[in-house]
Parts: sequence; structure tokens; C-alpha cells
Amino acid sequence: MGELKLTSAVTFMVSIQDDLREVEALMRSQADERYPDLKAAIDLLLNAGGKRIRPTLTILAGKMLKAQREPLLNLAAAIEMLHTATLVHDDLIDGSLLRRGMPTLNSRWSPGATVLTGDYLFARAANLASQTDSVPVMKLFSHTLSIIVGGELTQLFSTRCKVDRNNYYQRIFAKTASLFEMSAKSAALLCLAPDAVAEALRAYGYAVGMAFQIVDDILDYTGEQATLGKPIGSDLRQGIVTLPAIYFAEMHPEHDLTHYLVDGLCIDDQDEIERLIDSIRSSEAIERSHQEAIQFVETAIRNLNQFEPCPERLALEELAHHVVDRRF
Amino acid sequence: MGELKLTSAVTFMVSIQDDLREVEALMRSQADERYPDLKAAIDLLLNAGGKRIRPTLTILAGKMLKAQREPLLNLAAAIEMLHTATLVHDDLIDGSLLRRGMPTLNSRWSPGATVLTGDYLFARAANLASQTDSVPVMKLFSHTLSIIVGGELTQLFSTRCKVDRNNYYQRIFAKTASLFEMSAKSAALLCLAPDAVAEALRAYGYAVGMAFQIVDDILDYTGEQATLGKPIGSDLRQGIVTLPAIYFAEMHPEHDLTHYLVDGLCIDDQDEIERLIDSIRSSEAIERSHQEAIQFVETAIRNLNQFEPCPERLALEELAHHVVDRRF
Repeated sequence: MGELKLTSAVTFMVSIQDDLREVEALMRSQADERYPDLKAAIDLLLNAGGKRIRPTLTILAGKMLKAQREPLLNLAAAIEMLHTATLVHDDLIDGSLLRRGMPTLNSRWSPGATVLTGDYLFARAANLASQTDSVPVMKLFSHTLSIIVGGELTQLFSTRCKVDRNNYYQRIFAKTASLFEMSAKSAALLCLAPDAVAEALRAYGYAVGMAFQIVDDILDYTGEQATLGKPIGSDLRQGIVTLPAIYFAEMHPEHDLTHYLVDGLCIDDQDEIERLIDSIRSSEAIERSHQEAIQFVETAIRNLNQFEPCPERLALEELAHHVVDRRF
Repeated sequence: MGELKLTSAVTFMVSIQDDLREVEALMRSQADERYPDLKAAIDLLLNAGGKRIRPTLTILAGKMLKAQREPLLNLAAAIEMLHTATLVHDDLIDGSLLRRGMPTLNSRWSPGATVLTGDYLFARAANLASQTDSVPVMKLFSHTLSIIVGGELTQLFSTRCKVDRNNYYQRIFAKTASLFEMSAKSAALLCLAPDAVAEALRAYGYAVGMAFQIVDDILDYTGEQATLGKPIGSDLRQGIVTLPAIYFAEMHPEHDLTHYLVDGLCIDDQDEIERLIDSIRSSEAIERSHQEAIQFVETAIRNLNQFEPCPERLALEELAHHVVDRRF
């Protein structure tokens, strides 16, 4: 029985590939032929790939609710385009040279061209969202963009992050979970589904997004440099304290380097930063963070209980599990 | 009779001030209290003022069509917020230190904070647009943003501008007239007005916007440095060839510096650039450009003929005239 279900979910994920290819085509069609340089940039960004987990989530939720295909694909494309736009500005601000192992736009282009390309992607994401003809979707779209950008501004203006779990949850909500929330909830808004359905999908998306970002933050400590495309512990090196470091500080108040985390101090000594990263990496803080991600996934799946069993629901469950099982 | 009409228009413009104050309040309310630095930035930008000509146009067009007040003011605020957002990124890209005689955001803040503040304003502009509950308005909003950003990208990627009148019209449409067009047309979309009404207002907004930018480009040659807040001829100094320079080149092919304009060459010699600016400034190219702006205004006013005479229509006519009469 379980195996049968699994097969149906896998089969279903295969069928989603056609939808994702159309989402890809919709995104590419947003590049106006009159701007060849812009078209090249958009191709570059889209070729860099990415997991396309947000549009997958939207498509699955939408199909579960029997959404009309065309507006659903526009919505999925709008969300991935919005995500891409925020990455372009993020990389510029952080000065990142690689993303997904590929050169970032700002590593090749002037800051001005990078700012404008991000702006253009925002405009085209808004255009795709407006193609859904749904006012609630467009309201959620602008609301989510405000949350994402507001979170980045808060981080930019805040002093170095200290060990503060609430602050951490707020940060990863703004950075990641808000768009996951939108990815799932907007499918319900598109279908004019009852509030309870929209809320269940919002809660599902939120929890998957939180789990996703926690796993990202764990992988920053446990991943391979080659796979990550950046040095291990790069968050801490930039002064960003994530869940593994927070748990480490809570569990090891006696450690001679914990005060750096608690007081939010900058670590200048290269040996000390390597030693702290190693200590966190080999501590139980990793497993504890992982357990928390698993709890978020369980919450996510519980929120799907109100839906009749169907291949889409099963695929959404699989997707949630996949988020904590991934190794990169 | 004419005097009576004029009085009524002036009276009407006074009554618009209340609406504009509400638009201002709506814009300020978009600054989330949780981000005090952002709030300070938005206050700074809004205190810098500006003519608020775009929201005035929207309010007049909307009142003429008996639009509902609340969505109309949201729309007007969305348009001015979008305008402000584009200025923030523009000033960053151009490295401008002053705008309307006030320090620009990028002159005080890091590039990252400036990029994100612009993004936040885009998000809040989209939010205000979505408060109109009008899908056509939101479609036009994202479409117009694409045109504006696309135009800036074209300019960034193009080699130095040459004497090319078509190219000039395309540039000033993207830069200015597209948003004026939206300011007027969107009021019609909000009221679900017939297509002919929307088209007449679009044509009015387009022509006013074209006239506005041509006058701006004339003032860059004829204005006072103190009023402009930048050196006279700053466009040409940046390699941007506007209408006065285009007409000058057409009318004076024999001038020893015209080849710089025709061939799109960079002028390194400071004396030569001053001499060229002086030559353009004192030539009939200025008056010819001004005549062209007046023609655009006449076209704009002709497009209002289909509307019954009313204070709003008269005020729209006054506004169009004002655009070519202004001295700063």
C-alpha cells in the first residue's frame, strides 16, 4: 500500500516536469527581444538552474485544488521570477561571485546593469502575477516582496547577529519561508478556495520553508566546499549566527569561543574562527538543528491532513520530506 | 467667460491639495514602523518634495470620470511611489549626489541599502496598486515598470547616443511619457471607462509626458545652475544627446563641433564642450525644441475634446500648459 502510494507520487513528480518546462518557457518569454543584453542575462540566470522547488510547490497545490492550468503556470513562473530577482540584488549586495556554482551576474556586469536587471525581473514577475487575473494573488505578491526586502534591510542595518532564536526565526521567515508560504497559499487564492484551505496551505508552505532554510544553514557547516561553492561556515565568517551556532552556544556555554556568539563579536583571529566552526560542525547542535527541521516538516505534513488523499497531496508530503533529506 | 473658466480651474487645483495631502499620507504609511531606518529614508525622499505632477494628473482624470475616491488616491500614491523608486535606483546608477537640491539617498547610504530601499519602494508601490482591486490597473502598472526599466537598460548598454530623433523619442517615452501615460490612462481603467476614453486619456498623458521631458531637456541648457542643482549642459557632458542638440546638429551641419554629435564621439576637451553647450544654448534649436513641446501640449489638449467641459478637464488643460511654461 505504502509502496503503491510512493510509486504514484514519483509518477506524479514526473508528470510535473512538463508543467515545469512550461514555467521555464514562460519565464524566458519575459525577456523582451528588443533588449538582447537583457535576454542574454535572463538566459544566463535561468540556465544556472536551481531546484525550482517553489514553482513545484505551487503547481502541486494548484493541481490538488483543480486550478485552471494557464493561470497556475503564470503564478508558478511569477514566483520563481520573483525569487530570481531577489537573488540578483542579493548577490550584488553581498558581492557574491558564484551562485549554484555559476558566475553571478554582478561578477560579469556593472553594478548599474545588475540593479536594472533585477528591477526588470521584478517588473516581469509582477507582469506574470497580473496574468493570473487574481487580485488576492497580486496583493499577496506585493506583500511577500515587502517582507523579503524588509528582512534584508533589517539584516543590513542590524549590528552583528547575536544568539537570539526569535530573531533567527524572523530572519529565515523573511528570507525564505515567506515565499514558500506564498507559493502554496497563492494556489488556494487563485482557486478562490475557502479560507481554511488557504490557511492550511499557508501553514504547510511556511513550515516547509522554515525546514528548507534550517537545512541550508546546517549544510553551510556540514556540506562539502565543492558542492556548496563556498567555504564551510561561510555564514559565521560573515558574522551571521544561524541555528547550529545558536544551539551550540546554548549547549556549550563553557566553550572558550562561545562568548563570540553570545556577545555578537567579530572574530578576527583566523585560527579561532576555524576552531569555532569545527566545534559547531562536530557538535550535537547539528543533529538538534536537524531534528528541528524534521519537526517543521511534520507540522507541514499535518497541515495536509484536511485534504483527501490524492497523488498531489502525496507529492507535497514527499516534497516536504525531501527538503530535510537533501544533502546539497 | 475665459476668466471665469480660469478661476474655476485655479479653485479646482486648490481643492486638489487635500487629495494630494492624502496621497502623501498614503505614501508615508507604506513605511513599516519595524524598520526605523527605512522609515527615515522614505521620509527623506518624500520631504524632498517634487512637483507631484503625476498623482495630480491621475486625480484630475479620475475625478473627471467620477472615480471612487479611495481607490483613486491609492492609485495616485502607487504611481508617485513607483516614480520615487525608479529615481532611487537611477541616482545610484548615475552616482548623482543631489536631486531636487537635496542629498540623494546614495550620497548618504551604502549601495546595498540604496538598492534595497528602491526595492522596498517598488514593493510598496505594487502594494498600493493592488489596493485599487483593479486587475487592468495592476497589469498596466507592471507593463509600465517594464518599459521604464527596459529603457534605462537600453541606455546603459547603448554606445554614446548619436543624433537620432526616433531614438530620442523612444528614450523619453520610456523615461517619462510612459508613466504620464499610465497616470492618466489608469484612472480610466479604474472606472471601467470605455476603451475610447482610456485611449484619449492615454494619448493626453503621453503627449504631456513628452512635452514635460522636452522642457526638462531644454532647461538643462537654459536653466540656472543654482535652480537645476547641476551644471548647465549636464546631459551633453554625460554624452546624452537631447532634442536641443539634435536640432542644433540638423540646423548647423557646418559648425566645427557638430561632428561630435553626429558621430556620437566623446568630447574630452573641456573648452570644446563648453563652446558646444554655449552654441546650442544660444541657437534657435532651443526655440524649435520649445515649439515641439508646445505641439505636444496642443495634441494633449485636443485629446480632451471628447470630454464635457468641467473644472477637471479645464485643470487638465491648465496642467498641460503649465508643463511648457515652467522655468524649473
